[in-house]
Order: sequence, then structure tokens, then C-alpha cells
Amino acid sequence: MAAPAIVFVGFMGAGKSTAAREAATVLQAPLRDSDRLFEEQAGTSIESFFDTHGEPAFREREEALVLELLERADGDVIALGGGALGSARVREALRAHVVVHVEVPLELAWQRAHGRGRPLARDRDAFAARYAERAGVYEQVADATLPAADRGLARRAAPALQGLATAPDGTKLLWATTASGDYPVLVGRRLLGRVSWPASGRRFVISDANVGPMYAGVVGEVSGLVEIGAGEEHKTLATAERVWQALVEQGATRADHVVALGGGVVGDLAGFCASAYQRGIPVVQVPTTVVAQVDSAYGGKTGVDLPRAKNYVGAYHQPAGVVVDVATLATLPPEEHAAGYAEVVKTALIAGGALWEHVGSGAPVDDATILGCARTKLAVVREDERDGGRRQVLNLGHTVGHAIETVTEYQRFRHGEAVGLGLLAALRLSGQDDLREHVRGLLEAVGLPTAAPGLDPAAVVEATSRDKKRTGESTPYVLVHAPGDVRHGATLAPDAVLAAVTELTA
Amino acid sequence: MAAPAIVFVGFMGAGKSTAAREAATVLQAPLRDSDRLFEEQAGTSIESFFDTHGEPAFREREEALVLELLERADGDVIALGGGALGSARVREALRAHVVVHVEVPLELAWQRAHGRGRPLARDRDAFAARYAERAGVYEQVADATLPAADRGLARRAAPALQGLATAPDGTKLLWATTASGDYPVLVGRRLLGRVSWPASGRRFVISDANVGPMYAGVVGEVSGLVEIGAGEEHKTLATAERVWQALVEQGATRADHVVALGGGVVGDLAGFCASAYQRGIPVVQVPTTVVAQVDSAYGGKTGVDLPRAKNYVGAYHQPAGVVVDVATLATLPPEEHAAGYAEVVKTALIAGGALWEHVGSGAPVDDATILGCARTKLAVVREDERDGGRRQVLNLGHTVGHAIETVTEYQRFRHGEAVGLGLLAALRLSGQDDLREHVRGLLEAVGLPTAAPGLDPAAVVEATSRDKKRTGESTPYVLVHAPGDVRHGATLAPDAVLAAVTELTA
Repeated sequence: MAAPAIVFVGFMGAGKSTAAREAATVLQAPLRDSDRLFEEQAGTSIESFFDTHGEPAFREREEALVLELLERADGDVIALGGGALGSARVREALRAHVVVHVEVPLELAWQRAHGRGRPLARDRDAFAARYAERAGVYEQVADATLPAADRGLARRAAPALQGLATAPDGTKLLWATTASGDYPVLVGRRLLGRVSWPASGRRFVISDANVGPMYAGVVGEVSGLVEIGAGEEHKTLATAERVWQALVEQGATRADHVVALGGGVVGDLAGFCASAYQRGIPVVQVPTTVVAQVDSAYGGKTGVDLPRAKNYVGAYHQPAGVVVDVATLATLPPEEHAAGYAEVVKTALIAGGALWEHVGSGAPVDDATILGCARTKLAVVREDERDGGRRQVLNLGHTVGHAIETVTEYQRFRHGEAVGLGLLAALRLSGQDDLREHVRGLLEAVGLPTAAPGLDPAAVVEATSRDKKRTGESTPYVLVHAPGDVRHGATLAPDAVLAAVTELTA
Repeated sequence: MAAPAIVFVGFMGAGKSTAAREAATVLQAPLRDSDRLFEEQAGTSIESFFDTHGEPAFREREEALVLELLERADGDVIALGGGALGSARVREALRAHVVVHVEVPLELAWQRAHGRGRPLARDRDAFAARYAERAGVYEQVADATLPAADRGLARRAAPALQGLATAPDGTKLLWATTASGDYPVLVGRRLLGRVSWPASGRRFVISDANVGPMYAGVVGEVSGLVEIGAGEEHKTLATAERVWQALVEQGATRADHVVALGGGVVGDLAGFCASAYQRGIPVVQVPTTVVAQVDSAYGGKTGVDLPRAKNYVGAYHQPAGVVVDVATLATLPPEEHAAGYAEVVKTALIAGGALWEHVGSGAPVDDATILGCARTKLAVVREDERDGGRRQVLNLGHTVGHAIETVTEYQRFRHGEAVGLGLLAALRLSGQDDLREHVRGLLEAVGLPTAAPGLDPAAVVEATSRDKKRTGESTPYVLVHAPGDVRHGATLAPDAVLAAVTELTA
């Protein structure tokens, strides 16, 4: 049987041809470029064919050519012209192959395509309309999505793309890029033990007492397992020391890596242990909770708590890869599931668009939700690895949320529950009364608290500015202007914050 | 009084003019280039003047021009022609200014200068001879030494260069460059509290019970002080946790930094605490022992020990700067001084040249020794920040040294004493019998052990390969081919190692 092809698709100016060439070189595979082949066969440039014969004639001939390419392919790497996916027959034929969407922002696409004589890049409005129309098609057919970034990216991603050919059906690959490195994110079902693994060397699994017994056995061949107690109270240096000592005893070396199998606590702690063990070995994050799958597994923030100083000891340590098995959520206790839902709503508000429509409709947390949240988080971190600017939007709902956790000494609410309350406060502070009501309904539907009777509002407001007091800075807030338009750095009057928090205590 | 000029000197092709231009831009200072001025005044190119009038006529006119430039300067940034330092009057006039040597390797200088029609870059042998002749002159007059590296380096270094104008007499500045950042290294006497500090924000000093009481008071304005117990046995996670907790209590924020004031233990531990506190704040290393001043303060390796696993938890965290006050060595206990001497001998063997001549002559550890060792360490780390290759040469003497420490459970020998013994073994294994005898004499003269009676040689050999056993790899050795020619990665027969260790036990 012929091996699936790796097919690069994307809008004009995405850099499909370059990406395909890089991947073909790494994989030592035959390279085909449908635009180039078209021009060879037609004996003229696409521009001139287009001008002479018109788009329908071009599309017809292109479809035949592409279908033949896909039919004959055997492990080929193929770059498809930007419009080839307009054909339903092409889309159908692509199902047998690995489809890679090279995602280009509209502005960059226009810059690159305009003025190179491309027939479809002459009018800006028509260009934008076509971009919007095609975006959904690319996303629908894509098994993998790569950012249209620097040269060399497709070279680094090529092994992961090849691995998709043998991954379980429906597995999606995203590509995380940050200043300090990039890595694959695999999202799907029953991936553990079945996907091409994003790190070499032996695996040392760190998990907790709940997750380890259920899933450590399906991670694949494992050279060591360390189980820690479940719960935030175990995210301490004492636990980290126990993990490090176990890694020494189990003989982990710099050629090996850590697998963080669990929720946010395991991901943070195991990531930090990996960052510091022998001054740094890789970690593969395998998140098994909603919070971890939509948020904490991505972006490289790791660490442990000090008494009364959450996450005060840690490191930025980007994972070697993230393997998100959505099926593991089935065994998550309902209250953990609900707590994670607050981060889903937060992420959907940041994303706007299709993800907000999906989540805002009250849909249950499904594969599309997880994938959409992962994309959103990766896009934010891509712009700002170290919290200097844009990454602050991820703190939506967290300023008041953290303050509520602080004044209740982390005893009354789960983190996600406090974030849900914080979201409601942030929406009131944003002047988004209807949206607040909408979100309140979403939270309520999954059983999350939407009020905190008995809480002392003044103490919460006091706690929001605890870290800032010394320097006299004011606490910056993240506000929602609309779903998809979330901005950081707002300064608010203490009275307004007090009112928004007081409302929660009613 | 006129402010001192910052004067860039260096061999042909070092990039003096570019560096001077960058520094002048940052410091908003007038820029003067002696070669350009010469050509303006002479109305012809230097090449053509040289060919018509000969070198002596050129030098005479150049000297007058440079002396006038230096005389008139008031905070100017000046680039001097490569040969201007041939004049004793110029060298004398430079004493009132900050002289910056842009250091270029011979090969790079030749590549850059040859074929551009430079009169002195036509014959390779003459070029090399001139290079060797001038190297000593540049080093002698330089207050600061920068590597001839990427564009932008002089821009980043400019504030530190300006700071030298007000530093105590004799202060030298070196510039460390690594893949993850660069930083100034200041070497001199009575620097604490008197040099322009290489980090902004408030200072939180971490020191030990010996050094803190003596020197914490002279670091300048300090916002917090944490004293740890003195000695390797305190380089633990428990101590690190105490430091982190103290930083929280003292209110250290991400805008502040840590000052590591002490020897290797303080530097390693405080560096690690800085690397992980709130996921990383800067650290300024202020080494006060021979070991730390010649070796451990540079290069960014930080960490703590686990039981039976030295340095197993840590991070690469390059300092924001290193301030080496050689005067602090006066209060070092003699046995600590001697233990550090083994690292001095090791570093001098790696460096060869003038440093080996100085150290090999049995000279006491003085400012020139510390400066030479710092330069050597920085040059090695520059090539290889993370121990992938060249940095391995710094393990000269450490393979057997560590094994001796292991079998004696870190009780019988100080680290430096074990390294001294390891050096003797490494020199025997290198076939350097005369050099071994020479080094034995040096170690003996400062009271370091040159034999370890009663040690079990087989156990030491066993310990050298402990970490490698699992993978079946052999232990790589660092061998000395000659002073200045030290190579890593040699594979040796166990019998040879056994013989070299057995000799130590006699």
C-alpha cells in the first residue's frame, strides 16, 4: 500500500512551497508542487493562463492535476495551490493523506502576495473576503497546522508531520513556537502509546496517585515512575526533592526525559523537576485534566509553591512536546471537570470567533473545545513567552480570582472556581453586563459557583494589590471589550473593584 | 576637568571603528577615528600615503595627530589606528583615558584585513609576526577587553565602559559572551561599593556566615541579606528553600536582583536561587575565594547537591555581571587559598602562554593570575555554554579528582585538594612526566597534598566510570598535550588509569 503523502495547503503567501521543500529534504521524499506542475503542463504562467482562460477553466484543470498527484503519491511531499481545496473531490481525496495547513495572518499574506502579479491579489477587499472564506476550509481539512514563520520551521516539524501518518484517526497536530524553542502539540483520542513520541531517550513518568494508576501503564515503555500526592498542597519543594532523588535512584541521565502525566500540579512540578535535574532535561507534557489540556500544559511555565507564595520557585522550561489525549477526561471527577470549565470560558473569551461561538453556545467540552483552546493559548504565548505583555491577557479573571483564593486561604474554592468568580468580576468591570449574564449562565450550568456569600469584599480588594503595594504601582486589570478583543493593563478605581466584588458576595 | 575618553584599540580587522561608533551612539558622545582624520588631513588614503612616504613618516604624523586627539578629548569616544600604540608617548597619554582593546583572533584579522589593500596585510608571515608583537602591548595598556564579536556588542558594553572612568585605578573589565547573553566582569581591588554596578533594582545579598559579616557591609546599599552556613554541606535544597523564603519575606520582586557574595558554594546556591525565584531574577556574582574568582563565578552553572549526587539540581543562569575584588582574598583562610590554587594550575595549563609562564614560575596568586584565569575561563565558555564540547577541557584533573572525593565520601579532601591529585593523574596519563613533576612541585609549595596514602586505587577507578556504566560508554578523559594544548574526549585503558591512581597512593 502506498504511504500517505504530506500535503501542504494554505492561503497565498503562506510559504507552502518553501515549507514543502524543507520537509521533503528532511524526509528524503519526492517533492511535488501543483502550481509548478500546472505551469509546466500548460506551458505558461498561472497568471497568464488565468487572464486568458479565466478562473473556472483554471480550477478544472487544477483539480484534475491535483487528483492525479494525490492518487499517485507514495510518501510524497506535496505543495497545493491556495485554491485547490475549493474542489470537494480534492477535499475527499485528501482524507487519505496528512494535510498540513500553513497558517498565515491576512496582513502578511497580502504583503507577500500583492504586487507579485498574482491574479487574486490585486484588490484588497476581494483578497480579504477570499481569505475569510477559505480559512474555515483549511481548518476543516487540516491534520496539522503550522504557523507561517521563519525558514527552518518545516524542517524541524517534519518528523512530527510524518508521525501523523500512523497516528490514530482524527489526531491533530499544532506547532508551538517561542523564542526559546518550538515543539509539537498532539491532540486526539487514545494517543498514549500510539503516537510518534516527541522526545528521544528513556521515559521517566511523574504522575499523581489518581492518574498514575490509570494511565502510566499506557504511556509506552517506561524506565521509571514517580507518583506524588494528588492536590495543590503537594506542589512543594519537598515533593520536588523526592522526585529528584527518585530520578537519581532510577538512573535518569541527560539523554533521558521526564513525562508529566496529570493535571496542572503534576505539569508544573514535573516541568520544574525536569528543568533543574542535571541543569535541565526535556519534559513531555501529557495533560489529563481540563485545566491542563486547555491552558497549563502549554507555554513552559513551571514551578512549585512556597508557603503563602504560590508559584514563587520555578523556571521557564518549554516542553519537548505536549500529548493531549482527550479521552482521559472521561475519568476526571465531575468537580475537576467543572473547575477546568472556567479556564475554557476564559480562553474562549480571549479567542472570540468560532471558539467563543462553540463554547458560548453551552456545548460540552469536546475535542473541538480543547483544540481551539490549545490554539488560542499557543498564539498568545507565541507573541510573548515571558509575560512581558500580551501574555497578560491570560490573566483574565485571575486578579480577583487569586485574591479570592488568598483571602479564603486556598481552602474554600478550587482554583477554577475562583477564576469563574473572577471572570464575573472582570466582565462587570469591563462594562459587559449582558456578556456577564451569559457567562454566569454557562458557569451555573456546569455547577460552578457564581457567588461567594460571606466573603469580605474589602479584604479581596486589598489582596488584589498586595504585591504592588511596596512600589506604589496600581494593579493592572485585563478587560473584555468583546469576545476576541481582550486587553491588558487597565487601571481601575478601587471603588469600582469593590463594587464588582461586593456583587459576588450577595 | 575634562572627562576621560573611551579609546578603542586593537589589531587590524578587530572592528574598532564599528565598536567606537556603537559606543558613541549609546553614550551620545563625540566620535573620533584617527585613521579617518589622518586621511582627511593628509588628503589621501593611508594606503597611498604609506606607499609614497613609508611607515616611519606615517607613524610620525599619526603620533602627533593621536596625541592631539587625546589631549583635547572630553568624554570623546575614539578609535585608534592599529599601530598607534607603537609610540611610547601615545601609551603614556592613554593612561588618563579608558582604553578598550577589541581582541581579534589572528585568523579572523587576516581574513578581514587581507585583500582590502591594507599595506600591512599583504604578507601572511609578516602579518602574523606583527600580530604577536602587538598582542602584549594591547593587553598592557587595556583597561577593558572586548571580543571582536557580533555587531551590537559595544552598544551593550558601553555603560560598563563608561563606568570604568570612575572605577578605582587598575580596575580591568572583561566581557563575557554566551549564547544566552553577555555581561561585564570587573577585576580589581577595593571594588565593592565603588564600581558602577552591573544590575539595576534593589540588591538582596546572599552570603555565608564567614564572608557576610566581613563584606556584606561594603557592597553598597542593600535591601536584604541572607546568610547561609559556610561549607559544601550547606549547598542543599533545604538551604535554597530558606533563601527563597527569606526573599519572599524581604519583599524581593522581579525588578530586584540577588548578589552572590562568597565562594563557590554561595555562588552556586545563590545563582540557583536567583534562577528560580519568580522564574528568574538576575544575579551579580561577587566571588571572594580563589576557586570562585578563577573559575566558578563565570559561566552560569548554578545548583545544589542532592545526597550522593553533587550538583544534580540546578540551572544555567548567566550572571548580570561578576565583580571580582582581589583584595578579599587577603582574608581567606590559608587552606582555602591553597585549595583554590589547584584550579589556578589547571586553568594555566589550559591557557598556556603568558599565564602558564606566570603560574608555572611559582608566582603567588596575584591580580594578573586572577585576570588571566578569568580570561581563560570566559574564552572556553564563549565557545560552549552548555558543556557540549570545548567546555569539557575545564574538567582537566576532575575525573580522577571527583572519583577520589567520592570514595573518600567528601570527608578527607577539599575539592581543590582532590583536583590537585587529579591533575597529577591526568598529567601522567598524558605522558607528561616532566610537566607532572613541575606541577607536583607547584602544589607541594603551597601545601597541597601530592599523594593520597591508603586510598584504594581500584575503588577510585571504579568511581570514575560510575555514571557511564549503564550506557556502556567509556569515561572520556581530558589530556594535556602541552600547556595551552589541552584536549578532551580521550579514551584510556582501565589499566593505565589504575597505574596513574596507584602512583598517588604510594
